[in-house]
Order: sequence, then structure tokens, then C-alpha cells
Amino acid sequence: MKNIVYIATSLDGYIADKNDGLDWLPSPDSADFGFEAFIDSIDALVMGKNTFQTVLAYGGEWFYSKPVFVVSSSLKEIPKHLEEKVFLIQGTPTEITNLLRKEGFENLYIDGGLTVQNFLKEDVIDELIITTIPTLLGDGKPLFGKQEKQLQFKCIESKVINKMVQNHFIKER
Amino acid sequence: MKNIVYIATSLDGYIADKNDGLDWLPSPDSADFGFEAFIDSIDALVMGKNTFQTVLAYGGEWFYSKPVFVVSSSLKEIPKHLEEKVFLIQGTPTEITNLLRKEGFENLYIDGGLTVQNFLKEDVIDELIITTIPTLLGDGKPLFGKQEKQLQFKCIESKVINKMVQNHFIKER
Repeated sequence: MKNIVYIATSLDGYIADKNDGLDWLPSPDSADFGFEAFIDSIDALVMGKNTFQTVLAYGGEWFYSKPVFVVSSSLKEIPKHLEEKVFLIQGTPTEITNLLRKEGFENLYIDGGLTVQNFLKEDVIDELIITTIPTLLGDGKPLFGKQEKQLQFKCIESKVINKMVQNHFIKER
Repeated sequence: MKNIVYIATSLDGYIADKNDGLDWLPSPDSADFGFEAFIDSIDALVMGKNTFQTVLAYGGEWFYSKPVFVVSSSLKEIPKHLEEKVFLIQGTPTEITNLLRKEGFENLYIDGGLTVQNFLKEDVIDELIITTIPTLLGDGKPLFGKQEKQLQFKCIESKVINKMVQNHFIKER
């Protein structure tokens, strides 16, 4: 039962550039980042409203094969064609984790900048799989926010993937 | 002829905590970070005044076997016992690089938060060797600052070292 972050950041730790742009990210086809195996290993995704709307805006076929829970108190409905794939959820990170566990979703993929930061603040992230894209953006939207609580992780694996590097950290408990 | 940064950061990219503290850093003896081999490979160090004064404040024997150039326009003299080991230097990162190259110092270790940021702004950093200590500090003094110019590096090596990870990036030119 784990909450896992799987995300790409720039060399200077940003998940989007200062205009929320992502064009510095390599195409998912440019290398094998292990994304499919990762998705196979999780039971559901939890993402914030912004990330959900960004994914929606890409258009095309729905991307995720696992249930997606969108954390939002303002969204009232999900587009019709996604009603069996996407669900609204509310609560603190701890409440959301407990609720989804009770429903049988053991391994959760926690996605989206603010959502990840909120889950880290409550220390309910167990693993971080961070792919560093070796671009120094100079400014942008940081993965990590400020928080009071220091957290200890350990790096268990690191892989160079076509000029990039993927580091896998797990929480020490 | 390379300018190289060799530095440790927290998981969230800080080189010191919010009180400038370093007690979250592991002891240099706790693992082999390749520091001695790295120092053997460089010809001189360039650091800012703050880093110099931090190193001085540790007391004890002088730490570096290679000449240290301290970038400062305000410092007027070097403590007597370091006069043959530490030298004051002024100029922009590009000017300092050119000056030291002319004096025969080919590979330079660029150290200290602001100094590294200033060298990156002028795109005169060739390599970054970053050891990530897997502690999320929550706040602190960031390694990377804001800058206009985007820079492309590539990761050429990555090593897990006793729960930490050392990633080696080189500038694409």
C-alpha cells in the first residue's frame, strides 16, 4: 500500500516553465521511462483539478487505463464520456488515502504540482520516482514547495536514460 | 579546460537550510563521494566570499590542496597563514575564467551558491556533479537561481551512494 509520485522535473526542479509550458519535456516516445510498467503497478491515480484540466485539454483518447480521482471541491461534474473512468474526490491527503484504501485501491499514483506538495506536507508520500530532464529552465513552477516538516527518503535506484536520469526514492519510516 | 560544480543538495534542491545550516549533510566520511579524485582532477577552486568565510569558520587545518581564488570586491586581505594558498580575484565569471586559464589553471572547481548561479548565468559552467541528499528540507537556500537563459546539459553518469545519489551532468555545446 503505497502513494507514489512519478514525475519529470527540469534540472532546476521545475515541473512546468514560467508560462506553464511543457515543451521542454521530451516526447514520451523518445526513451523508455518505464511509464507503462509503473501504471501497471498502481491501482488508481489521484490528481488535482489543474492537472486534470491540462490532461483534458490535450484532447484525443483518454490516456489512463486506471481509475482517476480528481481532488476538487469546485468541480461539480465530470465530462459524460469519462464518467466511468474519472471520479471527483474531496478531503485532506490523509483522508483521501484512507478512503481509497478502504475501497480497495492500494497503490496510488499521486500527480500534479499542488497535490504532490499537499501530500508531502502530510507525509503520505511513500515513493518518488523523479526523472530529471537536464534542461536548466531558469524559472517555472517548482515540484517541491515550502513545508515545515523535514522528510527523510533514501535513493534505491538510479538510471541514466538517454541523457536524462531517473532517480527512485523511498520514504524512510 | 572545464569549469565544474561539485556540490550536494537536498532532495528539494537546497544547499543550506533556511538558517544557513548544514547539519543535514552526511559526514564526508560516511560514504565515498569521489571528492578526493575530483580535487585531484582540478587545478584551482573559485568560490565566493561567503563560502570562503564559512570554510574559514570551521577552523582547523586548511582544507584544500589546490589554490583557492575568492571572488570578492570587498575583501581586502587574506589571513596571513593562507597567503600562499588563497588569492583574491575580481571580475565577471567570464573574465575570471579567462584570467585563470591564462595563468595555466585549466580545470576550475566553481563553488558556493551565488558564485555558481553567476557562472551559470554567463553559461561558463561545463559540468555539474550533484550529490542529492534524500532529505526534503522544506525550505532553504537553493542551488539554482532564476535566470533568463535556458541551458541544455546531459546526464552522463549516475551512482547510488549509501541512500544518496550522485548525478553527473555535462553541458551540451
